[in-house]
Amino acid sequence: MSHVRVVCHQLAPRLGDAHYNRALSAEAIRGAAALGAQVLVLPELMQSGYVFNDVQEAYALSEPLDGPTLTLWKTLASQLNLIVAAGFCERLADGKVANSAALIEPDGPMTVYRKAHLWDREKLIFTPGDAPPPVVETAVGRIAVMICYDLELPEWVRRPALAGADLLCAPVNWPDGPRPAGERPGEIVRVQANAAVNRLFIAACDRHGQERGVDWVGGSVIVDADGYPQAGAVAHPAEQRLVADLPLAQSRDKCISAHNHVHQDRRPSLYR
Amino acid sequence: MSHVRVVCHQLAPRLGDAHYNRALSAEAIRGAAALGAQVLVLPELMQSGYVFNDVQEAYALSEPLDGPTLTLWKTLASQLNLIVAAGFCERLADGKVANSAALIEPDGPMTVYRKAHLWDREKLIFTPGDAPPPVVETAVGRIAVMICYDLELPEWVRRPALAGADLLCAPVNWPDGPRPAGERPGEIVRVQANAAVNRLFIAACDRHGQERGVDWVGGSVIVDADGYPQAGAVAHPAEQRLVADLPLAQSRDKCISAHNHVHQDRRPSLYR
Repeated sequence: MSHVRVVCHQLAPRLGDAHYNRALSAEAIRGAAALGAQVLVLPELMQSGYVFNDVQEAYALSEPLDGPTLTLWKTLASQLNLIVAAGFCERLADGKVANSAALIEPDGPMTVYRKAHLWDREKLIFTPGDAPPPVVETAVGRIAVMICYDLELPEWVRRPALAGADLLCAPVNWPDGPRPAGERPGEIVRVQANAAVNRLFIAACDRHGQERGVDWVGGSVIVDADGYPQAGAVAHPAEQRLVADLPLAQSRDKCISAHNHVHQDRRPSLYR
Repeated sequence: MSHVRVVCHQLAPRLGDAHYNRALSAEAIRGAAALGAQVLVLPELMQSGYVFNDVQEAYALSEPLDGPTLTLWKTLASQLNLIVAAGFCERLADGKVANSAALIEPDGPMTVYRKAHLWDREKLIFTPGDAPPPVVETAVGRIAVMICYDLELPEWVRRPALAGADLLCAPVNWPDGPRPAGERPGEIVRVQANAAVNRLFIAACDRHGQERGVDWVGGSVIVDADGYPQAGAVAHPAEQRLVADLPLAQSRDKCISAHNHVHQDRRPSLYR
């Protein structure tokens, strides 16, 4: 586990055009592999687009785990020998859908995470997950996954961090909003803080491309275990591909002074 | 509770010179009052200085709650009608000391908080507090206090936030360290994140002035409930006085979308 090449490819999925989104994501996977990426992160709901009107529309665009998009991602990950983390609209039973992300290893099983904290109108559409973010022992280190608004809950980031994650992959769709001139978008600031207080690497892949009046920050970022950006970290609402070579082993050292360890310094009995 | 004028005065206490530190803090309180401050935050261990060799040295410099420094602060706060939050080395029983902060209201009682998360060699010197950060209903809003490394534990900031704090006053002594060129110091980034995920204002007052080889970030900052700086937020290791007029009532609105509330969106049963 020396340096691991991580890529975030910030793309513009098209709402409801699964065929286009499959082709776009396949091209991104092939491109990342050509760059020597060992881990590729794609946006939230890469497979379907984001701004659904209602659960019926989302259901019509959803896929089960053996659907064509996930099957293609799995095939490409295996052929090209890289790990892919990407968002999709997961078909559940009884007409329900989840805002999910797949963590796909070349040779291992596919791990699926369902977003537990839903943003805005997602609450009208998706069934939230109840399971903690998975932490998967991969060939390049221990990788966790969560999605977008999950990152705004520091307690949620603690769970995979305490479970030993080295790298947290986060497909996101950050809706754009006002911020003071010259300020780094707050979503990125929170990613930095989450990384530093856990000494965990985080790769967050945002999207671009307006959907039904919604614009996005375009703030994809890869931060190190001190919380400082190694790539991205600006609002750039256009296609971009971030590449960073991360010394993931640093996440195993949680000491930040001779007497401080970011996790052992916690006093959980006082937090209730 | 319209706009509340908050001042952070970043000063250089002198280790072991309580007389000098009293005079320096008294001057700061008078100066803040002259500026119309309703709340003044001074650094951690303002009364004593920071880099103690051992508990014996700290004990010799410590003061009880009716000691000369706290008595002076209380007198000035009453005379000048402002709230003062400042750090001091608190004398406990049996030769022990705490790294404490006093929240002093002009007419109310004095509230004392003891740092619960100790930094580096502080663990060899201070007895940590076990009580949560107090949240005091003052004339200008609900004010909480915590100290420096406490801010690095998001769970700890949640406690006063969930208890309804509008403004968190944080005396700090941030030791300087390496960071990438052009990057805002990580300590400030974490303050921003803590504020935003709770919709809480935070005023952190750092210090300057080398002590026994230790330099400080000089990163005093006042952030709004969105986590964006209203004053400070740069490494400026020299004297500086930050002034911000804060609409503290905004902290009572925890909604960040039509369907999201930063505290009600928490799912504590999943965080264990």
